[in-house]
Amino acid sequence: MTFELTENSYGKSNVRLVRVTRNGQQHELKDIAVDIQFKGDFDTVYTQGDNSKVLPTDTIKNTVYALAGKQAVGEIEAFGQRLAEHFFAGNPQISEIHIAISERLWTRIPVSGKPHPSAFVGGSEERRTANIVAARKGSSIQGGIEDLLVLRTAGSGFSGYIKDAYTTLPETNDRIFSTVVKAIWSYKSATADFKRCWNEVRSGLLETFAAHPSESVQHTMYAMAEVALQHCAEITEIHLTMPNKHHIPFDLSRLGLENQNEVFVPTDEPYGLIEATVRRK
Amino acid sequence: MTFELTENSYGKSNVRLVRVTRNGQQHELKDIAVDIQFKGDFDTVYTQGDNSKVLPTDTIKNTVYALAGKQAVGEIEAFGQRLAEHFFAGNPQISEIHIAISERLWTRIPVSGKPHPSAFVGGSEERRTANIVAARKGSSIQGGIEDLLVLRTAGSGFSGYIKDAYTTLPETNDRIFSTVVKAIWSYKSATADFKRCWNEVRSGLLETFAAHPSESVQHTMYAMAEVALQHCAEITEIHLTMPNKHHIPFDLSRLGLENQNEVFVPTDEPYGLIEATVRRK
Amino acid sequence: MTFELTENSYGKSNVRLVRVTRNGQQHELKDIAVDIQFKGDFDTVYTQGDNSKVLPTDTIKNTVYALAGKQAVGEIEAFGQRLAEHFFAGNPQISEIHIAISERLWTRIPVSGKPHPSAFVGGSEERRTANIVAARKGSSIQGGIEDLLVLRTAGSGFSGYIKDAYTTLPETNDRIFSTVVKAIWSYKSATADFKRCWNEVRSGLLETFAAHPSESVQHTMYAMAEVALQHCAEITEIHLTMPNKHHIPFDLSRLGLENQNEVFVPTDEPYGLIEATVRRK
Amino acid sequence: MTFELTENSYGKSNVRLVRVTRNGQQHELKDIAVDIQFKGDFDTVYTQGDNSKVLPTDTIKNTVYALAGKQAVGEIEAFGQRLAEHFFAGNPQISEIHIAISERLWTRIPVSGKPHPSAFVGGSEERRTANIVAARKGSSIQGGIEDLLVLRTAGSGFSGYIKDAYTTLPETNDRIFSTVVKAIWSYKSATADFKRCWNEVRSGLLETFAAHPSESVQHTMYAMAEVALQHCAEITEIHLTMPNKHHIPFDLSRLGLENQNEVFVPTDEPYGLIEATVRRK
Repeated sequence: MTFELTENSYGKSNVRLVRVTRNGQQHELKDIAVDIQFKGDFDTVYTQGDNSKVLPTDTIKNTVYALAGKQAVGEIEAFGQRLAEHFFAGNPQISEIHIAISERLWTRIPVSGKPHPSAFVGGSEERRTANIVAARKGSSIQGGIEDLLVLRTAGSGFSGYIKDAYTTLPETNDRIFSTVVKAIWSYKSATADFKRCWNEVRSGLLETFAAHPSESVQHTMYAMAEVALQHCAEITEIHLTMPNKHHIPFDLSRLGLENQNEVFVPTDEPYGLIEATVRRK
Repeated sequence: MTFELTENSYGKSNVRLVRVTRNGQQHELKDIAVDIQFKGDFDTVYTQGDNSKVLPTDTIKNTVYALAGKQAVGEIEAFGQRLAEHFFAGNPQISEIHIAISERLWTRIPVSGKPHPSAFVGGSEERRTANIVAARKGSSIQGGIEDLLVLRTAGSGFSGYIKDAYTTLPETNDRIFSTVVKAIWSYKSATADFKRCWNEVRSGLLETFAAHPSESVQHTMYAMAEVALQHCAEITEIHLTMPNKHHIPFDLSRLGLENQNEVFVPTDEPYGLIEATVRRK
Repeated sequence: MTFELTENSYGKSNVRLVRVTRNGQQHELKDIAVDIQFKGDFDTVYTQGDNSKVLPTDTIKNTVYALAGKQAVGEIEAFGQRLAEHFFAGNPQISEIHIAISERLWTRIPVSGKPHPSAFVGGSEERRTANIVAARKGSSIQGGIEDLLVLRTAGSGFSGYIKDAYTTLPETNDRIFSTVVKAIWSYKSATADFKRCWNEVRSGLLETFAAHPSESVQHTMYAMAEVALQHCAEITEIHLTMPNKHHIPFDLSRLGLENQNEVFVPTDEPYGLIEATVRRK
Repeated sequence: MTFELTENSYGKSNVRLVRVTRNGQQHELKDIAVDIQFKGDFDTVYTQGDNSKVLPTDTIKNTVYALAGKQAVGEIEAFGQRLAEHFFAGNPQISEIHIAISERLWTRIPVSGKPHPSAFVGGSEERRTANIVAARKGSSIQGGIEDLLVLRTAGSGFSGYIKDAYTTLPETNDRIFSTVVKAIWSYKSATADFKRCWNEVRSGLLETFAAHPSESVQHTMYAMAEVALQHCAEITEIHLTMPNKHHIPFDLSRLGLENQNEVFVPTDEPYGLIEATVRRK
């Protein structure tokens, strides 16, 4: 019996970094977690135990801190590109680098009505994300949002679906619609206005989630994707993942009471899971 | 050998409830999780398998939804008291009821600059909490905050401490100070203005965390407790728990670079843990 | 307005430590997490920002590793006592030390049917725990088990309970009974045979859970506590916490099928929560 | 601006099911979580809000319980295929079905030295997994293992790697090697002996992890993959993912002590992450 190595990659995950940049008393805070994976000429590491081409994952980690020490992190899409350039420059054995960065978003603590220059309160679980797939001939850049929890209590129904022997779900024209939006979008160029675009895609997703007359998760997801693409001309396509965080009306009739669509049991499992990719024609 | 039952309690935990209240198109959302524990004349349940005095935990759960169906939940401190009254009324075998309620805080999605009447975005991990310990002769009520993540980048030091053979920590007059505040405070009466007080305690904690010239977590914790007690005259004491979410300066000197107190490694473990109770004299 | 500090404590939590002890090729592995809290003469730390009596939590952490470097960890109940003795010896300002240790249990990987001398596979989520409350005049020692997940499919019922207007739970004489046992027991002396006792309490809890004719969680909990006390004469009392991990029969009748008590939906929330303390008379 | 939907899928995730099968007093327990995703002719659901081709995710969930009610679950690879067949039969609009099943592994509680017929203790976090990708023309079946935590204290080194300006990691020929194995392998046929193969792949992975003279995670990973392929002729390739759960020697020299490679700090982040696919030539 003989075998062959068909794919491999290695790297460091969850390199956590907080970078403070001080403009006098006004401090800027960047709080990120970085994942880096290398592909390339590494077969003999696996097959022969030869480490001569391995840049250790410990060094990968150190490099993240080194580059953050040399200059402010800036937009995460750009920081990821600087990391990739550094690794390519010193390591001819690497052919492809995958970098994923997740940024926690802090807001300033209001003191006497004004945002404090150096004190922050943790925002939500929402994260801004970036993915860089870097090759020797060029990079593709994606921006994104993760764990954006939303809920609406009006204008959402679900009816007209297939009924079979195992159907028990009642049709409804007024349900709670809640989800945790994950969005990943692709930039046309590696020098887009990442910050503006992120804000515009985000507002487009949120406003459409809030206001779209919804026949289903799928229906509203598509509308959200369209508006996101309209809001930022620099992106070519967007992928959305939206788990349906079901809120089930509690059956008060068994208790001799009536539920006027007011009392719900939020459930985490099982959950519907909806995905779609929409692109510019 | 003979044994005796010295303490016991039972109940239902994590009863999750979302209650929508509609004032025309303007919808109010309440999102809570309720824990309920009973103490009382239950020894024979344990020692003889006699269930005749057991109100099942399933019925405890149903009762939470029933009471939320009859009227809006309102302030969680008051909802907890209504639950306790209901259980006492029908169950003479119960002598004490512990109720803990945790509320997720949603904010309205801004659409065209205005808060949407029926669409919400999940706030942070922060929770508003209430504890009700109800006895036949009266109740004690506590309000609280959990998982309030904060961080400051200026005005915080730690020095002048004991050095021994195992000391390696360098003294500093400029460190990142980050913690997750947990606060529990006791109300003088069961009919306090819970909402106003919660907001005032919260703002006092945040503003003091931001601005206090800090010699240690303990030092700032005490100042926060004092301001909280000043902000709300209706509370008698406050207990604070503040884990120290260490941010360790990364040693760039080993990489031939200098860290001007700008690059930090946030760590989750191990963590300092500081607690204190402060009361009005 | 004046205020007073009524209680305070500080320390380090989740100090993780793996200690390898080599007897030739036969290696022993100890994998623990340690929490340490001090009480004592620390008021001025809070009220005046005076750190002169503070042994930093970083030094507390270092001390754990130092003591593990000097000799093998051994039984966690004894290691906790050594830590307390060390801190008392050098720090007159400390009056009370609370130490909690949690131990992950590894088993040896079988190779060709024999346990490997230096390779291990992670056991379950179950942990062995120890609590030491040390004062200048003596210590109290507790052993324990956490996260011991169990399930039985026969001999468990729940009936004869109170019915009221909000009752919907059907009585049953054949249900799935599943829980995650947490047990904490108190030793008569600080030099008990901790290891043997832990094993005997554990087997008593498991065997009784498996075989007891169960009228309720409470009923079986009490029987488990009795057997634990019988199994180890060196313990004076035991406290058990058992959440009811409900397994709800799926209603197949709505699908035109019959559920012969075979198909269940395991749920995490809400959950019944039962507690009791049983002691030797 | 016009847009197009380029990819989409929907389904139900984390459908949790416990199935008891009784052979007299001897009970068998199956504890699984099922994820199901459909692809097919669903564009108008997204673009027009037309639900006429949607089999609701609630019905997908019901179907899992229905099929488990009709017969015992059996091997998860086969149960997944039965589910796919059911959905294809009634839904011409579906072209592809992805099913992932994760099985918790219970062991019988020993009572008086014998495995109890109907009482179980939760195994480790390890899961047996299956992936079925079903198309109209046939299915591909994968078996797998997740969350298999292992650690070895001998015979593992890491040296001979690239050094650059940011290298700080010391070379070692004796380190702790710990990882959480995730393995996914592909079956040649949809009717393989899934149970036997799972056990043989698992033992091959464990034994090789334990005994292989290791130059790196990559080196041992490849050896593990080879042995897995040797152990089961019915599989064509295997993909391994192994995060490096670093155990860092604690620097006791700063405390005036020596660490004879005995005292380690286990860390969860950051972590090395290694992946490879190996196939039969």
